[in-house]
Amino acid sequence: MVVVVRGEIRLTTGKIAVQVAHAAVLLAERAAAQEPRVYHEWRQQGQKKIALTVERLDELERIDRAARARGILTAWVEDAGLTEVAPGTRTCLGLGPARNSDLDPITGSLPLL
Amino acid sequence: MVVVVRGEIRLTTGKIAVQVAHAAVLLAERAAAQEPRVYHEWRQQGQKKIALTVERLDELERIDRAARARGILTAWVEDAGLTEVAPGTRTCLGLGPARNSDLDPITGSLPLL
Repeated sequence: MVVVVRGEIRLTTGKIAVQVAHAAVLLAERAAAQEPRVYHEWRQQGQKKIALTVERLDELERIDRAARARGILTAWVEDAGLTEVAPGTRTCLGLGPARNSDLDPITGSLPLL
Repeated sequence: MVVVVRGEIRLTTGKIAVQVAHAAVLLAERAAAQEPRVYHEWRQQGQKKIALTVERLDELERIDRAARARGILTAWVEDAGLTEVAPGTRTCLGLGPARNSDLDPITGSLPLL
């Protein structure tokens, strides 16, 4: 599982962590329902996650399209906007769980968060 | 849901976000299985999460005991230690989901992460 955070939005560490956690819970639930074999393999291997970053929203949108074209689950997180950003702001995109060989062509070149 | 991160361990933002996400997934799964009513209420209200911090492990252990004594689910996250910390290092503690009125006496005075 990979979560890509939109770097142009300035958030506190705690806020970023919560956004990434939202994405992870959404993806885990969807995978458990839609792809139970992939989900159980991911859980048994320690529910691996990695957090990456891109600068701009249009890059995140391109990553979303590329992942879905490969059949990888994606989940957008929108912030409720109660504190640091405007309501409905898309803060990050989660992808997977999926094999490294499927994720690497899409996110393998992005910097670590 | 509250995730309390051990501040004395210095990790990158991305690593902290992943630890918080591990706790959130563990708690969401346990709640769905053990406390479905609490879980569904939490999901319907936007799966609220907050990330807090304490300085030392013994404070986290005290919080864990206090939460469990009140019947609140808790989940420790241990880092696999592949990158930034020693294997098995406990990095954070997740609590909930639970009502604010149950969590506040335990974590209400802690600083935001």
